[in-house]
This record gives sequence, C-alpha cells and structure tokens, in this order.
Amino acid sequence: MDPLVLDGRGLTVAKVIDVARRGRKVAIAPEAMEGVERSWALLQKMALTGSQKVYGMNTGVGANKDREISPRYYGEYNRNMLLAHCDGIEPFASEEQVRAVLVVRLNSLLAGRTGMAPDLVRLHSDFLNEGIHPCLPLRGSVGEADITNMSFIGLAMIGEGDVSFRGRRVAAAEAMKERGLDPVTLGPKDGLSLVSSNALGAGLAVLLVDALDRLIDTADLAYALTMEGFKGNVSPLDPAPYRFRPYDGPLRSLNFVRALLEGSYLWLPDVTEALQDPLSIRCSCQVHGALRDALEYARKQIEIHINSSDDNPCIVYEEERIVPCANFEPLGWVLAFEMMGIALSHLSKTAVHRTLRMASPRFTGLARFLTPTDGKVHAFGTIQKLFCSLDSEVRHLSNPVSADYSSLSEDMEDRGNNTPYVMLKTGRIVEAVEVILAIEMIHAAQAIDLRRATRLGRGTAAALAALREDVPFLDRDRNLSLDVTAATRLVREGTLLKRAREALER
Amino acid sequence: MDPLVLDGRGLTVAKVIDVARRGRKVAIAPEAMEGVERSWALLQKMALTGSQKVYGMNTGVGANKDREISPRYYGEYNRNMLLAHCDGIEPFASEEQVRAVLVVRLNSLLAGRTGMAPDLVRLHSDFLNEGIHPCLPLRGSVGEADITNMSFIGLAMIGEGDVSFRGRRVAAAEAMKERGLDPVTLGPKDGLSLVSSNALGAGLAVLLVDALDRLIDTADLAYALTMEGFKGNVSPLDPAPYRFRPYDGPLRSLNFVRALLEGSYLWLPDVTEALQDPLSIRCSCQVHGALRDALEYARKQIEIHINSSDDNPCIVYEEERIVPCANFEPLGWVLAFEMMGIALSHLSKTAVHRTLRMASPRFTGLARFLTPTDGKVHAFGTIQKLFCSLDSEVRHLSNPVSADYSSLSEDMEDRGNNTPYVMLKTGRIVEAVEVILAIEMIHAAQAIDLRRATRLGRGTAAALAALREDVPFLDRDRNLSLDVTAATRLVREGTLLKRAREALER
Amino acid sequence: MDPLVLDGRGLTVAKVIDVARRGRKVAIAPEAMEGVERSWALLQKMALTGSQKVYGMNTGVGANKDREISPRYYGEYNRNMLLAHCDGIEPFASEEQVRAVLVVRLNSLLAGRTGMAPDLVRLHSDFLNEGIHPCLPLRGSVGEADITNMSFIGLAMIGEGDVSFRGRRVAAAEAMKERGLDPVTLGPKDGLSLVSSNALGAGLAVLLVDALDRLIDTADLAYALTMEGFKGNVSPLDPAPYRFRPYDGPLRSLNFVRALLEGSYLWLPDVTEALQDPLSIRCSCQVHGALRDALEYARKQIEIHINSSDDNPCIVYEEERIVPCANFEPLGWVLAFEMMGIALSHLSKTAVHRTLRMASPRFTGLARFLTPTDGKVHAFGTIQKLFCSLDSEVRHLSNPVSADYSSLSEDMEDRGNNTPYVMLKTGRIVEAVEVILAIEMIHAAQAIDLRRATRLGRGTAAALAALREDVPFLDRDRNLSLDVTAATRLVREGTLLKRAREALER
Amino acid sequence: MDPLVLDGRGLTVAKVIDVARRGRKVAIAPEAMEGVERSWALLQKMALTGSQKVYGMNTGVGANKDREISPRYYGEYNRNMLLAHCDGIEPFASEEQVRAVLVVRLNSLLAGRTGMAPDLVRLHSDFLNEGIHPCLPLRGSVGEADITNMSFIGLAMIGEGDVSFRGRRVAAAEAMKERGLDPVTLGPKDGLSLVSSNALGAGLAVLLVDALDRLIDTADLAYALTMEGFKGNVSPLDPAPYRFRPYDGPLRSLNFVRALLEGSYLWLPDVTEALQDPLSIRCSCQVHGALRDALEYARKQIEIHINSSDDNPCIVYEEERIVPCANFEPLGWVLAFEMMGIALSHLSKTAVHRTLRMASPRFTGLARFLTPTDGKVHAFGTIQKLFCSLDSEVRHLSNPVSADYSSLSEDMEDRGNNTPYVMLKTGRIVEAVEVILAIEMIHAAQAIDLRRATRLGRGTAAALAALREDVPFLDRDRNLSLDVTAATRLVREGTLLKRAREALER
Repeated sequence: MDPLVLDGRGLTVAKVIDVARRGRKVAIAPEAMEGVERSWALLQKMALTGSQKVYGMNTGVGANKDREISPRYYGEYNRNMLLAHCDGIEPFASEEQVRAVLVVRLNSLLAGRTGMAPDLVRLHSDFLNEGIHPCLPLRGSVGEADITNMSFIGLAMIGEGDVSFRGRRVAAAEAMKERGLDPVTLGPKDGLSLVSSNALGAGLAVLLVDALDRLIDTADLAYALTMEGFKGNVSPLDPAPYRFRPYDGPLRSLNFVRALLEGSYLWLPDVTEALQDPLSIRCSCQVHGALRDALEYARKQIEIHINSSDDNPCIVYEEERIVPCANFEPLGWVLAFEMMGIALSHLSKTAVHRTLRMASPRFTGLARFLTPTDGKVHAFGTIQKLFCSLDSEVRHLSNPVSADYSSLSEDMEDRGNNTPYVMLKTGRIVEAVEVILAIEMIHAAQAIDLRRATRLGRGTAAALAALREDVPFLDRDRNLSLDVTAATRLVREGTLLKRAREALER
Repeated sequence: MDPLVLDGRGLTVAKVIDVARRGRKVAIAPEAMEGVERSWALLQKMALTGSQKVYGMNTGVGANKDREISPRYYGEYNRNMLLAHCDGIEPFASEEQVRAVLVVRLNSLLAGRTGMAPDLVRLHSDFLNEGIHPCLPLRGSVGEADITNMSFIGLAMIGEGDVSFRGRRVAAAEAMKERGLDPVTLGPKDGLSLVSSNALGAGLAVLLVDALDRLIDTADLAYALTMEGFKGNVSPLDPAPYRFRPYDGPLRSLNFVRALLEGSYLWLPDVTEALQDPLSIRCSCQVHGALRDALEYARKQIEIHINSSDDNPCIVYEEERIVPCANFEPLGWVLAFEMMGIALSHLSKTAVHRTLRMASPRFTGLARFLTPTDGKVHAFGTIQKLFCSLDSEVRHLSNPVSADYSSLSEDMEDRGNNTPYVMLKTGRIVEAVEVILAIEMIHAAQAIDLRRATRLGRGTAAALAALREDVPFLDRDRNLSLDVTAATRLVREGTLLKRAREALER
Repeated sequence: MDPLVLDGRGLTVAKVIDVARRGRKVAIAPEAMEGVERSWALLQKMALTGSQKVYGMNTGVGANKDREISPRYYGEYNRNMLLAHCDGIEPFASEEQVRAVLVVRLNSLLAGRTGMAPDLVRLHSDFLNEGIHPCLPLRGSVGEADITNMSFIGLAMIGEGDVSFRGRRVAAAEAMKERGLDPVTLGPKDGLSLVSSNALGAGLAVLLVDALDRLIDTADLAYALTMEGFKGNVSPLDPAPYRFRPYDGPLRSLNFVRALLEGSYLWLPDVTEALQDPLSIRCSCQVHGALRDALEYARKQIEIHINSSDDNPCIVYEEERIVPCANFEPLGWVLAFEMMGIALSHLSKTAVHRTLRMASPRFTGLARFLTPTDGKVHAFGTIQKLFCSLDSEVRHLSNPVSADYSSLSEDMEDRGNNTPYVMLKTGRIVEAVEVILAIEMIHAAQAIDLRRATRLGRGTAAALAALREDVPFLDRDRNLSLDVTAATRLVREGTLLKRAREALER
Repeated sequence: MDPLVLDGRGLTVAKVIDVARRGRKVAIAPEAMEGVERSWALLQKMALTGSQKVYGMNTGVGANKDREISPRYYGEYNRNMLLAHCDGIEPFASEEQVRAVLVVRLNSLLAGRTGMAPDLVRLHSDFLNEGIHPCLPLRGSVGEADITNMSFIGLAMIGEGDVSFRGRRVAAAEAMKERGLDPVTLGPKDGLSLVSSNALGAGLAVLLVDALDRLIDTADLAYALTMEGFKGNVSPLDPAPYRFRPYDGPLRSLNFVRALLEGSYLWLPDVTEALQDPLSIRCSCQVHGALRDALEYARKQIEIHINSSDDNPCIVYEEERIVPCANFEPLGWVLAFEMMGIALSHLSKTAVHRTLRMASPRFTGLARFLTPTDGKVHAFGTIQKLFCSLDSEVRHLSNPVSADYSSLSEDMEDRGNNTPYVMLKTGRIVEAVEVILAIEMIHAAQAIDLRRATRLGRGTAAALAALREDVPFLDRDRNLSLDVTAATRLVREGTLLKRAREALER
C-alpha cells in the first residue's frame, strides 16, 4: 500500500484501520502543513510579544489558568506539564490501538488549529512510519480530552518514557536514535498541544466501528447458518415487506443474508412446515439492521470528529485570532457508542435465543441438545450455561457510564464523558458477542450435519466448510471449551466471513 | 386548522402534534383508501376460499398459530381475540396520548398492508374527529407490538369498554351512539389487525420527540440566562471554531443562544474577567447540540416507522400475496430513545453544575447562594438538594430496559423491547429535567437582578420578564417550592420560550 | 388499642405500623421527656451565654456555618430557616406515610439528644393523636437528612402551610385551632431541630419492611397454589436437606409452605411423575427465604436507626456537652434497601418463570395457556406480556441510585444517599410484584380447577376460595385486566393471606 | 502451620485464606470421612439394585433427567458427563483461587451428603497438599452451581486436562504421577458429584470477604491520614454520640481510627478552626462502618454456605434416603455481594471527595493541588482525572447482574445468579478502590509534609513512614503514574496496614 496522505479532512474509519492494523504508512499533505505552520507562527508571535493571554501558553491550565507563565520558562514549563499529566495506568494499549490514536491525532493537528511546532507534528508521522509506538496507558481519563494518557506520547517524543519498538519495550530515546530521530524540545503551548486531545477515546472508537462492522456481518452469517440448521421458514426473507418500511440497515442485512443463502435447500418448495418461526429467528434481519442503522450514526459522528480540530484554544490564523472554545466536548459521538452497547445487548440476546431454540426438538425435530443418535451423548446441553452467562456479562456492561463523572479542579472541570472507558467496555461486549456467535455457528453446523442437508447456500456452504476444518462434527462428548476457542478465533480473525464472501464473489 | 390529510406517507412529528395536542381533525386521502380496499378484498377472497393459511386469519396467533379457525367462527373468534388481548393495566393514557396513538395507527393502516375492513379503518378517523378517546392502559406491553393495549381501542370500536368523551368516562357504545357511529362487527383477521401494532409505543415516541425539541430549546434559553447571571465569558460563543468541527446540533444551539443574547451587556468590551469559565458553562452549546444530533436520529427513525406498515402478515395486493414478515420489530427507533435517556442525564447534570456554579461566590463575585444583602437570608442554599436529587432520579431512569425481556408463548415470542415503558421512563426524565431547568432560570434571574444588569439580550430579556411575572426577586426567605412549581409551569407550557421567540421575531 | 408509649427505645416496625395504618394513638414516657427537657435546658443556657459555637444555634447551617446568629434574631432566624428549607415537591405523602414519619421522628426526639423545645416535641404526639397530617412532599431530599421535606412539618407546627385533616386539605392554623392547639414560636436551634432528620426516608423504610413481610408471605402462598396447579413434585419440601444448610429464611418459607399445603393431594403417594420440576418451582422456598434473610438484615438496620438519635449536633446533657457528629448518615440501612430491590428482581423473575411454566403443556399436561376444553378460547396467552413487562419494570427499578449524588453547598455537603427516592422506587417494585403474584395465583387457580383437584391444602384451599369470590374460572375469553385488578386488590389488602392464615389456625 | 483439619463444619473465611494464600495443608477429620463413606455405600447399594431413580446416578441430568442410565455405562457415562461439562472459558483462576475452590468444595463434601467415592474426596486434599492445581476457567457459569467450571477439576482427577504444578502448566497425569497419585475411575454419580457445586463462586466469595476486610481497614487508615493532612476537626471522632446510635460497624471504624490517631497533633487544643468539615470527611467512620455491617452480613451468609452441603440430591444416609432438593441455590449470599458492590461505590466516592477537598485551599489553607512553594509545579491537579475515572468504573461495575439470567435446558434450568461473574466484577471494584485509596494517601502524605506536621498518630506515623520509603515528597513534577503504582502495591500487599498495626501493638 502506498502511504495514506493526511490533510485533516477526508479521514475515514477504513483508512485509520489501514494504518492501525495493516501497517500502512502515512504522508502529510503539503497544503495541510502550511496551515500548521501559519498557526504556529501566529502563536510564536504572540508568545514573544505577550500581547494576549492564551490559555496554556502564557497561563496555567485547568484551575491554574489564573497563573501567568513567563516566556523564559516555556521549555521547563512544558516539560513539567507533560510529566504532571502522566497519570494514566494499566492496561496499556496494543500497537494497533497506539497507531489508531496517533493517526487520529495527527489528522486533527493537520486542521491547523493547534499551534503545535511543525517538527512535533511531523514526528507523529515519523513514529507511525518507523514503528515507534509509545507506551500508552488506557485508563485515567475522564474523557473530556484524554490529557492523562496523551501525555505519554509527548513523553516519548521528548525522548523520555518507553515505547514499543520491533516487538520490544525500549526507552523512547533508544528507539528514536536507532531511527535517526531527534527528541524534541518543547516550545510555548506544545505541552498543552500534546495532551489536550480526545485522540485516545477517538482512536478506540474508530477501531470499535470497524469491529462492529465485522460483528454485524458475522451475526448475519450466523443467522444464515442457523436458518439452514433450523430449516427455518424463509418467508421473512421476502423483500416485498421491506418496501413498506424502508429502513436502510434491515435491508442491508436482508440482502446479505439472501446472498449467503443463495442456492440453499431452504428455497425449495414445501421445505419448511412451520407457518412462523420464533421471533428471534424471524426478526434477525430487522434486529441486525437496527444495529447497522445505529452504527451508521456512530460512524457519522466519529468521522466528523476525526476530521475536526478538538483543540482549545482554536487558532484562527486567517483572522490572527486565538479563540477559546469547547471543540473538545466529545458527547456527540460518545452517546452513539453508549447506544451501541445497548444495541449489542439486543444482538447478543437474540443470538442466544436463536441458539436455545436450535437445541429444542419442539422446533427443529432434531434430538434434544443436538445429540447424535447415541443416547449417551450430552452434546450441547451444558454449553447453554456458557453463552447465557456471557449474555449476562453483555447486559451488565451495556449499562451507561458516560454521565457518572465528578466535578474536578475546584469545579473548573465539571464535565466528563469517561470516553475511553466507554470504548473499553464496549470492546469487552464485542469480545463476548464474538464467542456467542461462534457458539451459535457450532450449533448451526451440528444441526446442518444432523439433517444431512447438502444443498446449502453459496455463502453458508463456504463458511461451514471453513468452520469444519477446525471444529468437527460432535459425535461423542468432548471438551467443548476447545471447540469454542477454535471457533471464536475463526470469528475474530474474520476467516468465516472471508470465506463466505469469496464464495459470493466467485 | 383544516383537517390533516393522511395517506400513509408524509406524516411528521409536527403533524401528529397538531392532531394530538391541538385537536386538529383528520381526513383520509382517497388514493390511500383504495389500497386499504384492495388489501381487504384480497383477504376476503382468501378467507372465503381458504386457499392459503394466513396467520391470524384462518389460524390462531402466537403459540396458537398451529390452530385452524373455521370461517363460521370469524366473528366470535375476532371478538374473543380482542377480549383475550385486553391485558393492559393502569395508568391510562391522556387524551393527547390517545390521539397520538390513533393518528399513528391510522396512518400505518393507510399504507394498505393490513387488510382491515375499510369501515374499521374509517372509524379511526371518526374517533379522532368526534373526540371519542378509548380508555387506553399504558402498561402491559413488551413492546414487540402493543397487542395488550391496542385491544382496548378495538374494544371501544365494537361498542364495548369505555371511552373518554367530552371530559367524562362513558361507555363506548353511548359515545358512539351520540355521535351517530355504529359499533363494528369484526370480519376475518380484524381482531389481529386491531391489536397487532406498535402504535402505543410509537405514539408516545412522537410526543417525546416534540417534548424534547422544546426541552433542548429551553435548555439553551436557561443557559443564555445563566450566562447573563454569571457574567460569563462569551468567547465560547464565537462561531469561528464551529467551522472546524462541523456538527449540526451544536451549531444550531450556538445560533439560538447568540440570537437570545443579541444586544446583551455580555458582548461589551472588558465585561468578563475570567479567561475561561467552568466546563459546564463553556460546553453548553456543544452538550445541548449533541442532544440535538441524537434527537435528529430519533426523529428520523420514528418518522420512518410512522410512515410504514408494521403489520404482520404484510398484504402485497399488487402481487396477490400475503407475506409473513417482521415489520413490527421496533428496535431501530427504540435504541434511539434509550440513547436519549442517557443524553438527558448529561443535559441534566450539566444544568445542575451550571446552577451550582452560579451559587458560588468564587465564580460569580455575588453573595453565596445568591442571597440579597441581608445576611439572615438563606436564599438558594437548600434548594440544591432538590435539583440534585432530581438529577439522581434522571440518572436512575436513564438506565436501559429494552433488552430485559423474557421468552414468552412457549418460546415463540422471544423478542421484546419494552417500548411503551422506554417511552414512559424517558417521559419521566423529561419532567424532572423541566424542573431542573426551571430552577436554573430562577437562579439566573436572581443573579441578573443582584447584578442590576439591565442591558440584556433580546430573547433573554423577554424570558426574564415573563418569569418575573410569576416568580419575583427573592429578597427574604420564602417557601421556594411554590416558586419552583410556578416556574416549572412556565417551562412546561412553553411560555418562556414563546416570549423569547416573539422578542426575536420583533 | 391503648396508646403506644414512646420512650426513644423499643420502637419496632410493627408498632410504627399500628400508628401509621391503624390510627393507634401515642403517649410519651415521662422519663423520656425528662431527657428532652434537660437537653433543651442546656441549649438554652448556652444560647443565652453564647459560651460555645453551636452549629445551627448561634451559627448558620451548611456552607453558612461560618455565619454567626445573634440571639435577638433567633425567632426570625428559625422561621426563615424553615421557609428556606421548604424545597420539596410533589408527589405528597399519604396520611399513612405522614404518620409513619411523625412517629419515627418523635421517637428519635425522645432520645433526648436534639435540644428541641419540649412543647414542640409534644406537638408531634398531638398531631398524631388529633389526626393533623402536614402536607409532606416526597421529593427533594438527597437523603443525607431530609431537610427539604421535614421543613413542611415544622411549617405546619408554626401554623403556616397546609395539613390534611379529616380527609380535607386545610390551613394548618385552622386545624390546630379546631383541636385547641397553639402554633409554636421557635426558639434557638428549633428550626434546625425540625428539619435535620432522616425521618422521611426512615418512615418510608419502615412501611416498606412491613410491605415486604406481606409480599414474601404472599409469594409463598402463590408458590403453594402453583404447586397444586402444577401437580408439583413435593420432594423439595422435604425438611431433611434443610438441616444440612441451615439458613433461617429458607426454613421459614419451607415451614409456611408446608403448613399451607397440609392435607393437599400433592402428598399422596404416586401423585407426581416428574423426578424434578423446573428450578423456578424447585427453588422457591430457597429464593423466598433468601429474601427473608435479606429483609431481616434491613429490619435490624432500620430498627437500630429509629431507636437512635440522628441529630447533629448531639447533646450529651449528662456531660454538659454539645458534640458535632455524623449520626445522620443513613448508609447503613439504605444499603439494605438497595439490596432488597435486587432481591425483589429475583422474586419477580422466579414468579414469572413459574407462571410461564404453568402455561406450558410440556410441564403440566394441561392445555396450552390453561385454556378450557373449547379450542376457541385464548385464555392466558397474551397476559404473559403483562406480567413479563412488569418484571422488566422491576428489573429497571432495581438498579441502584444511592451513590449518584453530587457535591453541594460549596462542597460542604458532599455525601448523599437519595434515601427517600430509594424507598419510593422500592415501593414501586413492590407494587409491580403484587400484580405479578396476583397473576400467578390466577393461573394456579385455573390449573387447579382444570385438574378438578379437590383435595387442597388447608391454607391454599382457603386462599383459593377467597380468590374465586372475585375471580371466577375462565371458561371463555373475557377482559382479563379486570381479573388482574380484582386479584391485585385481594393481594394488596392481604385478604388471601388472611384467609389462608385463619384456616391454618382453625 | 499445622494442617487445617476439615470436618464439614467450622470452616471460616480466615481458615480458607490460610489454605489459599499461605499454602496451609489440610487434613480430613476421621468422623467426617465416616459420613462420606456411609453416603457412598448407600448410593452404591441403590446403584446396584436400581431400587430408586436417583437424579444423575441412574438418570440423565438437567433436561435429560428423563433418560435412564444403565449400570454398565456408569464409567463411560460419568467421564462423558465431565467432558460434556467442560464449557468454561478464560480467564483462568490463579493458584490462590483454585486452592480456595478446592478447600471449599472439600469441606462441603465432608458434610457427607454427596455420595462421592471416598478416594475421590481424599484426592481433593491430596491436590491441595501436593500443590496440584487444576486449570480452572473463571467464566461460563450461570451461578446456579458452577458445573461448567468444576468439571475441569474432575477432569484433572481422572488424569486428563492440565494443572498448574510447581509454577508450570503440565498435564494432570504427569503431575499426579510425580506425586504418586493415581487417576480415578469414576463410579455412579461421581460425574455429577464433581460438577454440581457452587464452589467456584463460593471460593471467590470467600477471597472477596478477606479482601474487603483489608480494604475497609485501609480506608480507615487513609481517612486517618487525611485527617492529619487536612487538619480535620476531631469532634466527629468523639465516642459519645455513638452511644446514642449503636451500630457495630461504625463503632469499629471509630475505634480503629482513634487508635491510629492516638497521640496526633489533631487532639491538641485549638488546632482546628473549622466548626465542621465537609461531609465526606465528617462521615467517614459512619460510611466505612456501614460497609463493615454489610460485610458481616456477607460473611455470615457465605460462612453458612461453606459449612453446608449444596449437593442435589441430598443423601440422608441416617434414614437411607436420597432426597432431591434445592440446596444449591446461592441467592442468599449472592445478594450480599451485590450489596457490597453498591457499598463500595459509596466508599469509593467518599474517598474521592475527601481527596478532592484535600487539594482545595478553601479547606486546607495549603496551596492548590498541594503544590510545594514553587509556582511552576502542577502537583496533584491532573491526577484527579485518574481517581475520578476509576470511581466511574466502580459505579459502572456496581450495577447488579445476578438476576439477568435466561431460561435454559428447555426451561428446566430457569434460575440463575451469575455468581462467579458477580464475584469477579466485585473483585474488579476492589482493585479500583485500592488505587483510589493509594492516591488518597499520597495526597494526605503530601499535605502532612507541607504542613510540616511532626506529631502524628501512632498508627498514621508508621504508615506514613512506610509510604515515604517508596513515594517521596513531590517537590517538582514527575511521572505520577509511577507513584500510584508504587503506593497501590503497598496497599495490595497490606504493607501500610501492617506497619500501622505493628506500631499500635508496640
């Protein structure tokens, strides 16, 4: 892949993922760099002349905003500020997470409203391109800018603190030296410019959108397999009623499920006897589609943010003004992710109910718990405890947390969103749902095999084949936790979806 | 107002409000009625010939879908079905709520996918136009269609049960007779057609969107007054930074607040000394704007629903088909309202913090708790308990509930959303926030008067004048709960907003 | 009943209920009055000499504690304080609730640690005995003393504000005059003494303990009836295993259920075929018993409180000292009631599952939804929506709220418990569970009748007979909401329990 | 330490901790073994004669209870059952956790109600004494017996699966061989006997009680240090008012805090000027004491459980009966731990507020954020984000989860408690509160040093000295996350408490 050119504008979730997960390098658009330089020049001028009080430049920050900072202390003051903001604690971000944070922060810097020294801006792209990933703690932010965490990136850039480099944790100075990069000396406001950003929460949010895209697709796939295992009635897959209730998301799920099931025995006449299946099965496209609609809202809100400046103050160099503002307030997208948590508890419970129905002879005509013929096999009885307990975890984690903040800094900092924690708990939900969907597919595969159904959908057939490579038919009892682990890995790596999609494209 | 012509398509929140709150009458577009008639004719044909199993027509419903219904029992069966679905309990809907439900249901019927008898469809508009409002219980639905509640509307239409008519509760038959309407005899599927609808939840949702529109505007107004009482720094009201983070909602709040404050002393040079105010004050337009964005999502989702058919099965008369479907699944909009609950807990807490800051000499330079000069007055000390306890209620009610459903009907009904309850709890949140904003404005007014600020904004001056008609300056201690009640009434009736808007338009 | 003699010590839940619900009068023990007088005398002495700063006597309260109050302003200051604390809002307490609050407050006054004027103390008993019930708002307290609400009682005692008297709302002065009582003039600290008390939260808590006692007994009764309708296996009612896991509560439920079922056909040999019934049915005594254990903890914690002084400062007249303290902190019992909310969500869900199982032929051998022979009757199908949606409400309300407080009064008041709201939401849970249990009993009665079971338990037979007086057998569909209302009334009034108990005592 | 003799009766939290944390060995009381043998003999007899259906012996389990098991399949059936129950997933228990689970399970086996083969019972003590710790997954149980997890212990005992042995993960068979232990061959019901137990949840619960004991003591210590840093008014430490509100827990906290502060400068006359401090500081003994009372309830409930049999069926060998029962229902103690979660959110928030007050010159007279003299130091400003965000996590995790279960196994398993997850989330709360208290003590130490207070309490002086060994005075800005890590380690290892206690005992 050629480097991703960043200009502060057209960044998307997909592009961030390229950089974060696939190691794509970045380049800075020259015209964006021009804005960076004009901002910085304006700030320098003001810093020298002291013509205006600028928050965090010649004043303290937070409750200390009433303190004046003399120009001769800029260097020391800004280094101190970085150190004083190093208040994050474990766990630490993965390399993927660090890269997402760096690219998100870099793009917002390129909006040219920060006044950060151009060299420092460029160092963000150097870190990305040289694989220097600062040790970045994930906890400690109240999510009204992640100042306690972003400081650790700044720390590395001045050659202090640690980084992850070539798979090892080393001193930042060492890694930079090896790559021919010089530690930076901070100028006026650079400390504040480094820490005052929601890039931790936003980076995690972007990764979540990507994970959720995959998760909902996987849910559609699991549902399609369930339909074949269940011998489900296909009438809810009829496109006509969708014309009379035109939501985007449900239609997208419908089309994907229909594609996956193209050619399946389910479409043969007189296959299904039931007039209507249980709601969890009948409503799946609507439920998954509701999540798609909600996710589009989340994507839209976060994509506006990552193409914006969330700095305060905002440097309007065109008008030679430095304007205090509240562009750092992330509520607009945090709300969308709180909603996604609740949405996921519906996805989870619906998948759980589908899977419970699949184990019931009343609905399937197959043996209880999908046992093979031998009556001595317990099969999928006890595993219900596992996926239902995970569903309870999902429900627990889906409770909101963003508004549970306290008033800090002598009441100057009386807003909060707990943004990184919102993303982390939503991430934990995603991981639990991945296991639940893996178990649903194990059930569906067992039922399909018990039915000896051979004529499967184009997509489902391919996914089933991939699953069966790692999780064979259950002919007698075995340690199912190993099967769950194997199937979950296939879900997380996207193998099943990939194989299904390849089949559709053939 | 001329009658609102309904055709199953262009219904909006505003139009529903006209009918529900302002007594606007309705008319049915002839072309929409044609679809109703074609659906019904197709159903009648199938009912007579018995050519196809149609859910709820010649079969039972829910877990009883495996039972066949013989044509000669249609009348009795459908009346029984209505009775058997009368499982809702108190509290009962207000007239406004009943009207919202009726118009929402009528519009979805006009999509022509239900197969309801045309006379029964028309009776919906008759009820609206003649002011016959069935006694409609608000509890009892799991919100996957409100069958236990909508049945009470059907009950009234067959001349049983009670209605609210001319301000009294009377027998439905009596009210209909007085208005020259005949009770209906039910034909095939009419029972199911009457009950199988999310119109209760959707009607409540529409009313909520309207209430939320007003609430967010009121929050902007309260904030504008707070700015004048607080002598707040206007720099966060500078439009320039908004260009670099282009969210719609925040910009709308900014513009409204700027309009309200047009001409205020706040814009005079050197008025405010503070470089930055507390975040609750600085971020208000961003916070309120985040709610606006979320509300637009909710509006979009519910407006699609009220212009859709949520019936199952779906009658595609053009193709002579009756298709089982899941168009009744409301998750797509329920999620948006769960999100609004969380959003409101932010709005509430932000208003609470602004008001707490206003009572603090550290920020205002005014006396503690905004006491007038006399040291023996407690003023706004204890009232903090009231608005903070209401904020706790808001936080409590903001917890999600939609996914907490059980699997019913022998596992045939294993989806739910608790839709009406979601709307009711969100409604309770709105009521609590109205009180909180009323108290904020009482504080702001007191601070403005203590400052002897005379040059107020165009909008805020008018709102303040309106408030002062009912809530005078606090010069010595009095029973503040009476002031709160008075101010809350002004908020609920929209008086303050109205007066402010009129001033802007002058 | 003779008057209840109060002495600040041996007050119990049962005694409060006598006064609150059954109109029992109260008398003050002379020795307790002596302590009241000694406290007051000490305070008077200090007030005259000004020898010591006493919070709320010669200083302001809350953040105003740094203000001095001159003796000549005591009267005006204390009346002002009352007025300034009138910040509670609707809804207003019932007479029963007001009486519980008054008796709880009076008993704590009799601990003799408040320093309240003896006449004012006596006025509490006069109000109780003359049926003068101040209008007491239920909202507005953060539950770290209910100062915004208790003020309304004080207001009535100085002859201002309104009271409920002989079923009407009248001016306090009018009611007092009619009963020959004089409004009080307040002395030093009397204002604070009137408002500074958790008596609102504590009074509501005591009423809840009583309601919960009845609710758990009712749950046992509903379960016993379910056993007979279900033809449940009685082996879980064998006392032997209880010896090897000696919890009090479960044993109490076991013994009550065994007594209710004494003589039932269930104990006949070979009645039940199932080796084991579903867990909801098997575990009922354990689940209900767990609630009994939790309730004993709640009872113990609240009974300590209502026999304590929760005043601050605490007057230790024996040592001539007035000691600032934190005896007002109610967390110790608030936690127990938060736990009861969660406990009730288990009780609710277990009853719901028992009732769902009862409607299932797989378990009962009876017709689906307990329909009588006629296939055209829907019977108890749709009603599942009602009781399951109520269970969702219970789950929602069971979320904790006590720790969601803000820091008030310039951070002087930075603790809270939302005590009254905790009690109100738990009360709402109780009301929903009452409906759920009523519906369970309607199911059980229907199943018993369908089985033509004649030989019932001594207690269950009597309860069933009482139920059948108002809720007949369902032979064809009818408006079930009326049955639910009737059965709920029987539950709330305790009729079914009473009839069952009378039968046991015969 | 000599081995702990287990007899099914007098097990306490403290004894479990000896075995779990300190490697204490165990021995089985001979009289207890006699009961084990008699149970087993009875079961063997019945198994051979087939005289009675015994759940899980000659029948299947769960929904399969209607299946008969022929004696010749006992071996295979029981091994299959173990395998079929291996449905737990990561994370895996620590050695400490595994030991707690083993000792809890062993003690309940010694109640002699299980019918497990005596050799298999003894193997539990062998595993403990030889340090063979089966790989035990922590997730997968719905907490109505932890059958999906306990199976992994059984698996190791039959020589399959893995164990942790001498710090390495090895095959169970290998470790057993090295220690001269033979894998077991399972007899009738042994499979069920191995899995059917709440020992995972109960073991975790016991560890929690121990952690909570330490945590509340630590909170008292942190508060005592805060008092000295804050120069707090000691009047709330006066014992007199405690006599008039006699709760155990608060009195215990009071006495501990008074002991820690014995000899402190705080008791000198005229030290403190404030008439009353903020509530978070004044109420600490009451708040911590409320947690102590709640914890005693939890301890009592779990200690009954671990000295009981939670097996089903229950073998009453004295009467030659095998009785189906519900002794496995853990709700009685699960509720107590749900309450502890809420209690901890109060503890957390109160500590957070104390710490915020400490950073405020308004209360302390010290510099803002406890900066040393140099104005360029930020000191404890930004760290507020860290501890407040942890408090938000605590609030989030404190939401209940036990009642969020689904109905499983064709509705046979329709009860749940999510017991292990309740314990895990409470454990996560404890870890967050440990960090919060560590940060409080860092603040207190800084304030004490800034005050140059030399005359400290006997206990606080020792704790401060211990803290200062690892966390020096903050004279200029440094990476505070390192200080937090160091102080948290001292809290977790109990070093500060230990040093304070040693000082008290001198």
